[in-house]
Amino acid sequence: MKVGKHTYLADNNVYIASAYSLAGPYESKGTFREYFDTVMEDDEWKCKSHELTEIEMQRFTIGECLDRAKVNPMDCDLILGGDLLNQIVPTSFSARDFNTPFMGLYNACATFGEALSIGSCLIGGDFERVICCTSSHYATAERQYRYPLELGTQPTPESQWTVTGCGAVMLSKSKCDAPQIKGFTAGEVIDFGLCDANNMGGAMAPAAAKTIVNHFKDTGRSPDYYDLIITGDLGRFGRDTLHYLCKKEGYDIDNLNDCGSMIYSEKQKAGQGGSGAGCCSLVFCSYIYKKLQEGSLKKVLFVPTGAMLSRDSALQGESIPGIAHAVIIEKE
Amino acid sequence: MKVGKHTYLADNNVYIASAYSLAGPYESKGTFREYFDTVMEDDEWKCKSHELTEIEMQRFTIGECLDRAKVNPMDCDLILGGDLLNQIVPTSFSARDFNTPFMGLYNACATFGEALSIGSCLIGGDFERVICCTSSHYATAERQYRYPLELGTQPTPESQWTVTGCGAVMLSKSKCDAPQIKGFTAGEVIDFGLCDANNMGGAMAPAAAKTIVNHFKDTGRSPDYYDLIITGDLGRFGRDTLHYLCKKEGYDIDNLNDCGSMIYSEKQKAGQGGSGAGCCSLVFCSYIYKKLQEGSLKKVLFVPTGAMLSRDSALQGESIPGIAHAVIIEKE
Repeated sequence: MKVGKHTYLADNNVYIASAYSLAGPYESKGTFREYFDTVMEDDEWKCKSHELTEIEMQRFTIGECLDRAKVNPMDCDLILGGDLLNQIVPTSFSARDFNTPFMGLYNACATFGEALSIGSCLIGGDFERVICCTSSHYATAERQYRYPLELGTQPTPESQWTVTGCGAVMLSKSKCDAPQIKGFTAGEVIDFGLCDANNMGGAMAPAAAKTIVNHFKDTGRSPDYYDLIITGDLGRFGRDTLHYLCKKEGYDIDNLNDCGSMIYSEKQKAGQGGSGAGCCSLVFCSYIYKKLQEGSLKKVLFVPTGAMLSRDSALQGESIPGIAHAVIIEKE
Repeated sequence: MKVGKHTYLADNNVYIASAYSLAGPYESKGTFREYFDTVMEDDEWKCKSHELTEIEMQRFTIGECLDRAKVNPMDCDLILGGDLLNQIVPTSFSARDFNTPFMGLYNACATFGEALSIGSCLIGGDFERVICCTSSHYATAERQYRYPLELGTQPTPESQWTVTGCGAVMLSKSKCDAPQIKGFTAGEVIDFGLCDANNMGGAMAPAAAKTIVNHFKDTGRSPDYYDLIITGDLGRFGRDTLHYLCKKEGYDIDNLNDCGSMIYSEKQKAGQGGSGAGCCSLVFCSYIYKKLQEGSLKKVLFVPTGAMLSRDSALQGESIPGIAHAVIIEKE
């Protein structure tokens, strides 16, 4: 059922039947270490390039997610997913190993939100089981977007640390004791003209604010309907900017947080916090999913955020448009 | 309704209410010149880089497609689309100019098929109007995947010519006298181990064969159910390979052709034919759509094809996986 201009409430049950999280070594020293299903002992994971590592991360996580749900890949209808690398190679290449149809998505670090949104619509239709998966890897992202790690370039104070991690969920039509996707608010591309590729949080915060405010207007809900409103990877600076922007629109959100701001401990030198398409999927598939399962969270508005730049667009002096999709997740 | 393992037949009417095609100057000298809605007078189109030109191509084509349907961007529920550039910048950046939610897709040159498939599912649900749009530009693709044009590098005999073009359709729930999407067969990622980035047709043909054979098996239809079975951008060599692979599986398809094989005239030096995410969307939104509208085509199986490589994956010696989605389009 469509409510307002941007929001769709699910008419059918869409169960998040299983979730699996794979964290990098640096992430395993952070806030959510006890929630991760598997931790990589190093950044290479026995692969000869970090790009191959990221392919293996996707393959492993999707496989474990299916295993946990006791579903054969052949009985899964579709893999929906993406990552940050050019032509989403990690996701596309990992999909070779499952005899399952594949549709690749790209909304930068908001891709997991896009996957859950589209996935929930498909489950509302004819699809029985859909995998949603996104990943990122610190070394592949740095090499592609910034500088090779070997250069030892210093980060700016506004910068964030790309999460090495992968999260996958299996959406299912079949009734089970699991959190459900109850709907979503689809995001527009919003560009406030920021050009600093080191300040992604600032570039994405206006898009997150627009989507969250649209969500409240469309549904008539106030922030306190949710136990937690959590964005993808704004970082601390971006999260504070988002709080300010929402307050200006009349929504003073107390229960607001951000996966990127939370994932690393205060002691870790990760700038404003984590980022990357794997940041919010890793936190969702570990901490948030387990909190929903055990009942300490009941209603979550999960808002993955993305900055739509490429290396070329940044070098050509273009600004950085942002996007965010808000997904309603509840456990009954 | 799901039939077989990979095929979904639409339960509701999904009208392709409008279509718009924008062709580059070289494409305007080819086979379908009389079918294009707008032809670019040069490759720059008053933009200071070809990347900016491709953004403008998407913006223009989506705008004209909405205009033709007499729909305000604000009344459109979603833009679904993609292109070949890193982080699908042309599509993402063009979406800034419409106050419409955006979800970016990437299945290489099969992205238009992915957009039509997902779009038709959304229209079957709560969505009223969805734009599907893909583009490519010869100069941006060459610079990103191969060499700057200024180098004057010679193409190999197996190579194809990236189409400069853009095609957009608006899918709609509202009854109108227009072709309809009747369903689709979703494609798996298929990798036969080819590593030659100049022979994309060869890399994609096995994926196209798998999807088309799956389609016949799922639906119980034979090739002669369709007036035309047309792939995206296999080129002549890839099309012949596809014909051979289908024949081996027991389907000798007479009415098979390929947008890339058809788009350039015999006199144009375009190697095996056209390629790119804009190749099949341009041909669909011009020639195929108009033939459906006038009734000379009634049933078409439209099979956009994609090669999932990046420059990095090719340089690292990886093989090239392919994908194809088959979309059933009929005019009553």
